[in-house]
Amino acid sequence: MSDLKPINFTRGIPAVESFPIDDMIDAAAAALKQHGSTLMQYGPSLGFAPLREWLAQQHRVEPNQVMLGNGSLQLLEFLSLLMIQPGDIVFTESPSYDRAITLLKRRGAEVIGIPLESDGPDLDALEGQLHHHVPRFFYLVPDFQNPSGVTCSAEKRRRIIDLAERYNFLLVEDSPYRHLRYRGTDEPLLFRLAPHRVLLMSSFSKLISPGMRVGFVMGDHELLAKIAKIAEDTYITPNVLAHGIAYEWCRRGCMKPQIEKLKALYVPRLEACLAALEKHMPDAQAVRPEGGFFVSVILPPPAPSKWVRIAAARHQLNLADGLAFFPDGGGEHFVRLPFCALTPEEIDEGIQRLAMSVQEVSRQAETV
Amino acid sequence: MSDLKPINFTRGIPAVESFPIDDMIDAAAAALKQHGSTLMQYGPSLGFAPLREWLAQQHRVEPNQVMLGNGSLQLLEFLSLLMIQPGDIVFTESPSYDRAITLLKRRGAEVIGIPLESDGPDLDALEGQLHHHVPRFFYLVPDFQNPSGVTCSAEKRRRIIDLAERYNFLLVEDSPYRHLRYRGTDEPLLFRLAPHRVLLMSSFSKLISPGMRVGFVMGDHELLAKIAKIAEDTYITPNVLAHGIAYEWCRRGCMKPQIEKLKALYVPRLEACLAALEKHMPDAQAVRPEGGFFVSVILPPPAPSKWVRIAAARHQLNLADGLAFFPDGGGEHFVRLPFCALTPEEIDEGIQRLAMSVQEVSRQAETV
Repeated sequence: MSDLKPINFTRGIPAVESFPIDDMIDAAAAALKQHGSTLMQYGPSLGFAPLREWLAQQHRVEPNQVMLGNGSLQLLEFLSLLMIQPGDIVFTESPSYDRAITLLKRRGAEVIGIPLESDGPDLDALEGQLHHHVPRFFYLVPDFQNPSGVTCSAEKRRRIIDLAERYNFLLVEDSPYRHLRYRGTDEPLLFRLAPHRVLLMSSFSKLISPGMRVGFVMGDHELLAKIAKIAEDTYITPNVLAHGIAYEWCRRGCMKPQIEKLKALYVPRLEACLAALEKHMPDAQAVRPEGGFFVSVILPPPAPSKWVRIAAARHQLNLADGLAFFPDGGGEHFVRLPFCALTPEEIDEGIQRLAMSVQEVSRQAETV
Repeated sequence: MSDLKPINFTRGIPAVESFPIDDMIDAAAAALKQHGSTLMQYGPSLGFAPLREWLAQQHRVEPNQVMLGNGSLQLLEFLSLLMIQPGDIVFTESPSYDRAITLLKRRGAEVIGIPLESDGPDLDALEGQLHHHVPRFFYLVPDFQNPSGVTCSAEKRRRIIDLAERYNFLLVEDSPYRHLRYRGTDEPLLFRLAPHRVLLMSSFSKLISPGMRVGFVMGDHELLAKIAKIAEDTYITPNVLAHGIAYEWCRRGCMKPQIEKLKALYVPRLEACLAALEKHMPDAQAVRPEGGFFVSVILPPPAPSKWVRIAAARHQLNLADGLAFFPDGGGEHFVRLPFCALTPEEIDEGIQRLAMSVQEVSRQAETV
């Protein structure tokens, strides 16, 4: 059994073979030739201006509504330093991105999870919570959500904005997977529907490269200026060299073909994942996403994911801790399956191992 | 008067003409060719392993005693998140690096300043404070200190370590300027004298480029592992692409000639600064550093730096706020003069304007 090759359904990482290394070498040389003195010096805390302008143009906003950082998670940290005092309430979907939950809790937030349904947050639950407390903000991933794969419907997006207006709270829309839609049509960005109510966060990690650490946030320029002051007090200047390289790469028109390349690579992986679930685990309740990095499943009742995870490890199948995605409990049967960094064959083999692990745990549960 | 070219004695930034842009283009291409898949993917929270190994070899420590980050200031932030609870006491020199003071206070630390003398911290004052409270750590810049330019004597370094041992607290040695010694001989690193007692922080910002954001911390590997967990929870992965480029540049042997280049560039600037002070401001009490980025002066009594700063701005001379370097008061006559990013002519002109501003303020003070 130990001869098996390990298969990791652990982290939402891009496929190594997707990285545009040669184009990046050219972009780095051109960026340093053109902007070397700027890119190697301390820079503005909002990030390298030409990349801010490029992003502003893409999103039809003003450059002062764009702030760059070192990846997007840390921008949420800065927002938390600005807006959250220990004991303050923040809403997230439940499940939600585990690193966001960890970061918010580290800051001392009380994180309340709004149950996620197949078309977005449960709005009755959201409104029920709002009767008790208004959060500092509601952090959500409306497109191809991490960890569930769920996309929020247009109708729910509009109703979430209505509630944010009525109860007066900020929406933090984290949107790193949005451009990776493999079928169906786009739902409107919350930020597009209500720019004054929303901070839009995203990054190049899932499109170009996580190792570059280029993330960004868009929204009200006065709020961004406050976030930038906190950024400056933390690291003086973001990694402007990487901003410059990413800018040059974007300026050359590399983004569109890169996204097409990613889709061509990832679509068969998503299909392999869904087919394998149907074949090997017909009883599991799976989200069938139209894009992004993640499929999620709810395992059948007798097999809690905690035990399945231990059993799977014996079959060289590594799973993330499903409980970590639930800010305030639940998720005992939840499993996230990040499919992008595995080949279709590995995915099929991995889900076979998962099915085997579930069967083992179910059998044990029956004999107890 | 408004035709004057502005002169900035504000920030401690390197000279733009010192950046090794062409070598950096070559290093970027080679690093991406050799390590592209690693540099573009998520990486370890401790940073890119080959650069950690290179630094470990330079400092004769083990690679697990080296952690890389995005510049060094943020590594102090992570240490603060780990070690400081609001209300905890931290010592710094007084004056000290203003950004470190800001960051420590933001975390809720009570920052107590140990007065700095021409050969390092006032040890009687340090011991006096230790009778009342033991700090979580003592943050100090022993070589060519920011903002004063002072270097701590070997004898004082040894006595500081004795006190740290006796009272059982950590020393945080920030050492970004150490390699820029223009004359005299090195004093021993605190970290070399007592590795178990010291966290050594430094960065490539003053040697290669601040825009790359490559900083590091060395010390006990168990403490570093805890700091790395906080880093991971904040930004997942540091900017490994920049780590890879810096590594390739170092591996090629570029560091030594770069340091020689910097010395050749900065020595005449330091000399111009000291000569101009002697010529235009013989009454000011100046620190005459043997290296680094900063000269500091204490203005003669009738001219508080707050008013001089306002007067100077009218002469297109921009000064930093001297008070910000003093964690708990004092420094009313303190002025920091970062000389590296100005030509000798600009430095002479800037100090003439400073002298003129001091005279104006002194005259006003006399007539009141």
